[in-house]
Amino acid sequence: MFFASDNTGPVHPKVMAALAQANTGYALGYGADALMDQVRDRIRTLFEAPEAAVFLVATGTAANSLALATLANPWDTIFCSPVAHIHEDECNAPEFYSGGAKLTLVGDSDKMTAETLRAAIEAEETRGVHGPQRGPVSITQVTERGSVYSLDELQGLTAIAKAYELPVHLDGARFANALVALGCSPAEMTWKAGVDAVSFGGTKNGLMGAEAVVFFDPAKAWEFELRRKRGAHLFSKHRYLSAQMDSYLRDDLWLEMARQANANCARLVAGLRAAGATFQHTPQANMIYVALPRSTHQRLKAEGAQYYLNDGPLETGDGAELLGCRLVCDWSIGADLIDRFVALLKD
Amino acid sequence: MFFASDNTGPVHPKVMAALAQANTGYALGYGADALMDQVRDRIRTLFEAPEAAVFLVATGTAANSLALATLANPWDTIFCSPVAHIHEDECNAPEFYSGGAKLTLVGDSDKMTAETLRAAIEAEETRGVHGPQRGPVSITQVTERGSVYSLDELQGLTAIAKAYELPVHLDGARFANALVALGCSPAEMTWKAGVDAVSFGGTKNGLMGAEAVVFFDPAKAWEFELRRKRGAHLFSKHRYLSAQMDSYLRDDLWLEMARQANANCARLVAGLRAAGATFQHTPQANMIYVALPRSTHQRLKAEGAQYYLNDGPLETGDGAELLGCRLVCDWSIGADLIDRFVALLKD
Amino acid sequence: MFFASDNTGPVHPKVMAALAQANTGYALGYGADALMDQVRDRIRTLFEAPEAAVFLVATGTAANSLALATLANPWDTIFCSPVAHIHEDECNAPEFYSGGAKLTLVGDSDKMTAETLRAAIEAEETRGVHGPQRGPVSITQVTERGSVYSLDELQGLTAIAKAYELPVHLDGARFANALVALGCSPAEMTWKAGVDAVSFGGTKNGLMGAEAVVFFDPAKAWEFELRRKRGAHLFSKHRYLSAQMDSYLRDDLWLEMARQANANCARLVAGLRAAGATFQHTPQANMIYVALPRSTHQRLKAEGAQYYLNDGPLETGDGAELLGCRLVCDWSIGADLIDRFVALLKD
Amino acid sequence: MFFASDNTGPVHPKVMAALAQANTGYALGYGADALMDQVRDRIRTLFEAPEAAVFLVATGTAANSLALATLANPWDTIFCSPVAHIHEDECNAPEFYSGGAKLTLVGDSDKMTAETLRAAIEAEETRGVHGPQRGPVSITQVTERGSVYSLDELQGLTAIAKAYELPVHLDGARFANALVALGCSPAEMTWKAGVDAVSFGGTKNGLMGAEAVVFFDPAKAWEFELRRKRGAHLFSKHRYLSAQMDSYLRDDLWLEMARQANANCARLVAGLRAAGATFQHTPQANMIYVALPRSTHQRLKAEGAQYYLNDGPLETGDGAELLGCRLVCDWSIGADLIDRFVALLKD
Repeated sequence: MFFASDNTGPVHPKVMAALAQANTGYALGYGADALMDQVRDRIRTLFEAPEAAVFLVATGTAANSLALATLANPWDTIFCSPVAHIHEDECNAPEFYSGGAKLTLVGDSDKMTAETLRAAIEAEETRGVHGPQRGPVSITQVTERGSVYSLDELQGLTAIAKAYELPVHLDGARFANALVALGCSPAEMTWKAGVDAVSFGGTKNGLMGAEAVVFFDPAKAWEFELRRKRGAHLFSKHRYLSAQMDSYLRDDLWLEMARQANANCARLVAGLRAAGATFQHTPQANMIYVALPRSTHQRLKAEGAQYYLNDGPLETGDGAELLGCRLVCDWSIGADLIDRFVALLKD
Repeated sequence: MFFASDNTGPVHPKVMAALAQANTGYALGYGADALMDQVRDRIRTLFEAPEAAVFLVATGTAANSLALATLANPWDTIFCSPVAHIHEDECNAPEFYSGGAKLTLVGDSDKMTAETLRAAIEAEETRGVHGPQRGPVSITQVTERGSVYSLDELQGLTAIAKAYELPVHLDGARFANALVALGCSPAEMTWKAGVDAVSFGGTKNGLMGAEAVVFFDPAKAWEFELRRKRGAHLFSKHRYLSAQMDSYLRDDLWLEMARQANANCARLVAGLRAAGATFQHTPQANMIYVALPRSTHQRLKAEGAQYYLNDGPLETGDGAELLGCRLVCDWSIGADLIDRFVALLKD
Repeated sequence: MFFASDNTGPVHPKVMAALAQANTGYALGYGADALMDQVRDRIRTLFEAPEAAVFLVATGTAANSLALATLANPWDTIFCSPVAHIHEDECNAPEFYSGGAKLTLVGDSDKMTAETLRAAIEAEETRGVHGPQRGPVSITQVTERGSVYSLDELQGLTAIAKAYELPVHLDGARFANALVALGCSPAEMTWKAGVDAVSFGGTKNGLMGAEAVVFFDPAKAWEFELRRKRGAHLFSKHRYLSAQMDSYLRDDLWLEMARQANANCARLVAGLRAAGATFQHTPQANMIYVALPRSTHQRLKAEGAQYYLNDGPLETGDGAELLGCRLVCDWSIGADLIDRFVALLKD
Repeated sequence: MFFASDNTGPVHPKVMAALAQANTGYALGYGADALMDQVRDRIRTLFEAPEAAVFLVATGTAANSLALATLANPWDTIFCSPVAHIHEDECNAPEFYSGGAKLTLVGDSDKMTAETLRAAIEAEETRGVHGPQRGPVSITQVTERGSVYSLDELQGLTAIAKAYELPVHLDGARFANALVALGCSPAEMTWKAGVDAVSFGGTKNGLMGAEAVVFFDPAKAWEFELRRKRGAHLFSKHRYLSAQMDSYLRDDLWLEMARQANANCARLVAGLRAAGATFQHTPQANMIYVALPRSTHQRLKAEGAQYYLNDGPLETGDGAELLGCRLVCDWSIGADLIDRFVALLKD
């Protein structure tokens, strides 16, 4: 009953097969492999962006940090949610890669809104050379609390960013899960909604370790390449990154896995709802935050369920103690395990 | 006839099998996988260093840069050969990771000597706070020209470093090739010879992308972990790094591949010698620098041979033009291809 | 009527005289001047800290950034008030000097409290290697809203820091103004209250451009010297920094100027109170935040008064619009100008 | 007999007077003072560059590091002489400010030549993303061995730089000394000779601590301002930097002091020549490298002469031991001291 993260499950067999298939003969290194040409084409087609610059790295933190460093000056501040991965879970990697940019936390929710974003941008002002300068806006889709921005919400945020001439980055570690939740196209969720660069995640959705970074305007492509190399993220045996991403996009495998993950999560949500659990954030994709009584939590743990507690104890009106729990489903977790977990909810 | 690098060949089938085997069920991420425990034990045993701190990253540049950043202060200078990978082939990654340390180039050869190292260290002195401070010594074994330091040579270098209380890093991207060339033990080539930290390469010797960093004194282990995470080099699905390294060390696969690579190179060297070629550096491991007439070079290229030219044209005594060529053999290149290459040497 | 800042007034004549006096003959550079020995002794005596490491730099931002970089690791987060100078007014200098550390904003006031500090430290937790690590606590005394921490309040903050083994930095750009407001000794306001390092400001209190950095534990003295040099803040003609600081401390000139500045401010406060103005923060030293009607503000500006507006318009209960104004007094502003300003408050 | 450096003498009385004169009333801080407008005009007129961006900082290392960081990317390498101040005497400040750029040492002399520069640039090539990228060329005028580049030599270097589209920085810590040695105009020695940005030194030529940075193309002016602030080099009481530079340029005081310094040095050179001393570099400005017998050196030191030994002992043909000595004259050292020094040369 592993619900700890979508990075604890196995790699999809088709991806493993693609790695094996790529493992024949010689291939040029450092991104000059033929498979990378294919990946680039696939992503450009997928995003309806024939000019886009496309790169592969192996970790989501690398994708985010390198993309943001390319968009931000060292004296800028990056606008993001207070629970953004780039703020809470990357050990200052964005600050490191950007040469010391700051992060400004927008609002007090996992979702930024046009209003909180505008207020945060306005507050970083008018100190001229003295204060940090306004830099990129980084949006996490799916958010770190499992919410999905609607296209309208995304456009609301990017409209504010554009009004201040700030570039927009999308942390799409769970891009696929958001996409299938919204039922829109990759272009609609990115450049058509005003996004300039996207971390297009694969690792949390069935790959071994591969993420694409896509810049819709290729002007900074060479700078990104230098930053990637200087950051030690350019792989010599690059074909194995390419093979992962190629198989991911072939025959919509990525969407299939994301649909399965979201469906798994919906099954879990249904069980939790039936058991009367309350959700701290509306479930929309493959990650949920749910409040469980301490006794339930203890029973689940005793039975081997794996997940993280998010917050401290929550007090309910009648004094009973609840614990905030984070549960994540990937494509691979089976209905049987979900059902077993749900069964344990009942005393 | 791919002699361009030892990173253009395939991954060893046993490593692929280990990846497939690791791809079952759930595993904790970020280095907490059980396979990593096994890898740590293997490396400690192999190096006869039960206290050593052991980490995995995916690229050699990451291994070198993170190791050096852990050993060097930002105001230090790192002593290395003028052809060191950290100087010529990492796009300033050591400078980036160390926060702006400098590299001091020692001597004018691929090999540093006790004399050139001492002279370089002495020259970086007596300016107190004004000049860069003396920092780590980084030794590349196999060197970037294919030479192998003898144990005596290594000890000669580390003795100088110790005399100035400077830590010693070994860039062992081709650690295995050097080891089998010397016929010594890993401990003899590292801590027994005065090395403090080693980049223990695997990618150039049959892995997909996995390198170990080993600190014989574990005092800086936590700092390294933070640097690795901040550098975006901590893998969420870490088990696939572990699986590579575990299979690499199992049943001496790593030594088997290195022996094969060196033997392949020896076959190539014999053919070149028979054809009267002259070597710019004495062949010792799996990479050679050889001077070939331009006409031979053109014939080889026309037949599809792949390798790099190292230097500009060389003039011989009788006016004929020679080209400096770099040829590298990995474990996988077969005798047939080598023989075909050799056959082409003859007009 | 210059109330814009305490850095717009002239240098005290005694300091100018000291500079002239120092301007004879030759003196060793880079801090080896004899006057610096005298300054070091004066500061050690003043702070009752015979072992303290003492350095001079020319700007407050240099003092803060270099001190914090010496106390913080690049992967740390520094705890400070949301209106701290290091956060709002240094264009990411602390992030730059520290190599990418983060700033965590504590509470929502100019003053941190033991409770808000503990909560902020607790919130930066338990993510192990993933999140930023807890780093130094930086306290601004006088705060950027003109408040002065009592000794009890300081001790309350440092006790929390010590409980988490975090070092404590005091940004004392207005150290003297706080000291005379509290009527305590320098030792009481620093190391006796749990402070490890202090930016001891002079520029805002009558100097031309000189600040001391004092570490009560000299263990990191050499590191600081290297950071200062690397940051280009080591002056070749250092005697002119020494001369400023020496004259500042001679015959309590620094306290005399601070007393005068605070007295000037008290005269201004009295006039504002008499005119019915309301204060946004309790006046305690030489800087006040006061709400003035827009019409009053316009009249003052028309008459040439210089000061900053801090916040946007404030609404009062009866609909009248107020503006938040920041007024700062240095030692040099005369009673006549203050009285003229006060006279203009009346319609 | 202070010949240790041109930063150990006093500030010119006219500069002190200008500081006193500036010390009246209030002045806006951070470069918005009226005196700075005057300085900007003076420098633009002086350099015949009406569009130039002009900034003041307090140290030469700040001027160099900030200028180079503005011209270089972090993944670049900066071309300079092996004895350049930026390489030997700034404790990695250029590496720090640039975010990790490298320095490539050109040739083995204090002076780069078109040939050695071209060779160095050519050698940094063809590795694509793997190696450092070619960055700015930094020329030191007067060199760190006291040589002065002729206008032809400067143009020879900048022509190479332009051929590779690399920007050119001039470290003019001793700009004035070079200028009077060449007898040319500031424009001729800078932009007319192909220089893009110059560190226009004042501190070594009679100021207290003030250097101008001039960009002939103002496109990067705002970036420089942000870098200066972020580096903590923007002075709040900026008028005192302005006053120094203003008085420096008024009535050609700067040229007068440089002429005096060079004349002082010429007197010293004449005395040394008469005593049979041999020069390691041809004396051209106000700094010389001369070989003196150990016995002479000891006598001079015993009599209180102050200067640095540059190199280790030199062997002459007949076995006598010579020491390489660096002697620097500023404007203030009197003929009497020079003559006394010369007198001591005779046994």
